[in-house]
Amino acid sequence: MQQEQLILKERPNGLPDDNTFEYKNIDIFEAGQGEILVKTLYLSVDPYMRGRMSDAPSYSAPFEVGKALYGSTVSEVVQSNSNEFSKGDLVTGTTNFQEYNVVKPSEVRKVQTDHLKPSNALSVLGMPALTAYFGMMHIGEPKKGETVVVSGAAGAVGQVAGQLAKSVGARVVGIVGSEKKAQYITETLGYDAAVEYKKGNVSEQLQETCPDGIDVYYENVGGEISEAVWPLLNVFARIPVCGAISSYNLKEGEEDIGLRVQRFLINSRAKMQGLLVADFADSFDEAYEALEKKVANGELKFEETIYDGFHQTPDAFLGLFSGENIGKQIVKIADKE
Amino acid sequence: MQQEQLILKERPNGLPDDNTFEYKNIDIFEAGQGEILVKTLYLSVDPYMRGRMSDAPSYSAPFEVGKALYGSTVSEVVQSNSNEFSKGDLVTGTTNFQEYNVVKPSEVRKVQTDHLKPSNALSVLGMPALTAYFGMMHIGEPKKGETVVVSGAAGAVGQVAGQLAKSVGARVVGIVGSEKKAQYITETLGYDAAVEYKKGNVSEQLQETCPDGIDVYYENVGGEISEAVWPLLNVFARIPVCGAISSYNLKEGEEDIGLRVQRFLINSRAKMQGLLVADFADSFDEAYEALEKKVANGELKFEETIYDGFHQTPDAFLGLFSGENIGKQIVKIADKE
Repeated sequence: MQQEQLILKERPNGLPDDNTFEYKNIDIFEAGQGEILVKTLYLSVDPYMRGRMSDAPSYSAPFEVGKALYGSTVSEVVQSNSNEFSKGDLVTGTTNFQEYNVVKPSEVRKVQTDHLKPSNALSVLGMPALTAYFGMMHIGEPKKGETVVVSGAAGAVGQVAGQLAKSVGARVVGIVGSEKKAQYITETLGYDAAVEYKKGNVSEQLQETCPDGIDVYYENVGGEISEAVWPLLNVFARIPVCGAISSYNLKEGEEDIGLRVQRFLINSRAKMQGLLVADFADSFDEAYEALEKKVANGELKFEETIYDGFHQTPDAFLGLFSGENIGKQIVKIADKE
Repeated sequence: MQQEQLILKERPNGLPDDNTFEYKNIDIFEAGQGEILVKTLYLSVDPYMRGRMSDAPSYSAPFEVGKALYGSTVSEVVQSNSNEFSKGDLVTGTTNFQEYNVVKPSEVRKVQTDHLKPSNALSVLGMPALTAYFGMMHIGEPKKGETVVVSGAAGAVGQVAGQLAKSVGARVVGIVGSEKKAQYITETLGYDAAVEYKKGNVSEQLQETCPDGIDVYYENVGGEISEAVWPLLNVFARIPVCGAISSYNLKEGEEDIGLRVQRFLINSRAKMQGLLVADFADSFDEAYEALEKKVANGELKFEETIYDGFHQTPDAFLGLFSGENIGKQIVKIADKE
């Protein structure tokens, strides 16, 4: 018994093409002890898979050339050697992209089908919806009355992210690539406004649709769209960096630093936050107390580079950038009387 | 009675020079009712002042051309019409850069001089030390055993930031520009290691000094140094973005996107965080429950674009990038038996 399997033929440089994919005939194996044989009904294609087609360091292992692509699927159990599943059960999990897979019960979970179609396990109850949920609710944390912008707003993640923000009372603006998508997000999903980036001047469109600035930017796209958002961010804005789809198909050497920022943030899930000491004014006493105590008991060492005379101020200032001096640069103007 | 005042002569493009600064003679005014007259003893020069010399949008208002520069100073009260201060008191606050200033009592605070010199109010008990304290302790949040990297490590902020991380038991590596500074941070301040960026290959030096990766990067510098840090960040690293001194003197048109990222983060104090859904695996049930409920009661709308047939997979995948389709892209492989 033979089946088809989709393999990575060669790694793409830029946009994948006919040389990237190949269908191959392979045997159908039987389920071993405790295993189940499942027949693939639906498979999910997702932007993150582009990252796996390259061998650049990333949070997920690269696909291997000549081997099966794999991802989220919904399958039907056609043979079961496990007490946990019966023939006819629908399951979802990560499997190879082929017509049949032998899997262990722990690798899949049953699909919920009350009110739902089997494919929904890959969309509104799948990984993209979970991503939208955690990115928006745990990192974005929109509040009632705030303005939330979602890029890729009509996509698998964006369509859920925006509605979650609406459900807590935020005003939601979606960035999309077509009029059809703009209609979908405003009329079907209930977004408050749409920005169509292909119409140009995203900055102006955002200024018009976000008159009170932007409190949460759910980032799916990167590149020029991010740059149009940044100047409109309100103080203490939050940016869940979920993806940078504008850059996934750039060729070697085309990648810019904006892209590298987004990649490193996703790979490390680092939190990068701008800092201005004035924001902490209510806690200055806490800091003065801690610092004074450490200085008094000799725990905190420090240097000052003191320039003597008011006319030394320009040199003292320029010295900050030539990096010649150690510690704090200070100019002495006069002695105490 | 005349005094000297330092004014901004013209806005610099690139590094400030002789055309940037000018000393001007002005009158000394007398303290009015409730006011005090103070004589400047020390003034602080800080990198953020470079931003104020430009008129680009920023968190702080630009200096005005032809008017006094201003910043943190330590002064002596020489005339007091206020009950709060007496002649001879030392005070600190933000004043014009001139020899004498008339100020309101609310604009200054008394300087603590037990165990301390007056100038210390501008360094280890001044704005740079507070910045180090809040950036490291409230955003960086280093933990015992973690690796912390501080750039500009021998500077006014860095010298305090690194010691604060040491005090909670972190391993601290400083990035500096000279051997003298490397000695200062390791021998005097107790940093565990120094990276001298002018010696080249910062990446390699960081790999050697941070064998367990980097958990906190206290950012003072930006540019190439940041880029060398990024690949070494551990999952859930924290980056307080305090400054980007490498870029402050770039000319118009020389600014790159890395710089713009850092500027927007500082101007907005936004939190930007990479997102990977797998990190939330322990809370998936919470999300499934919330999403299922919203779908069941019709609150959460969604679309799926279903491609029919396994051989449609490459087209479905490429469709993600051409942006033609709405909602989640799914490929149907087979019907349920």
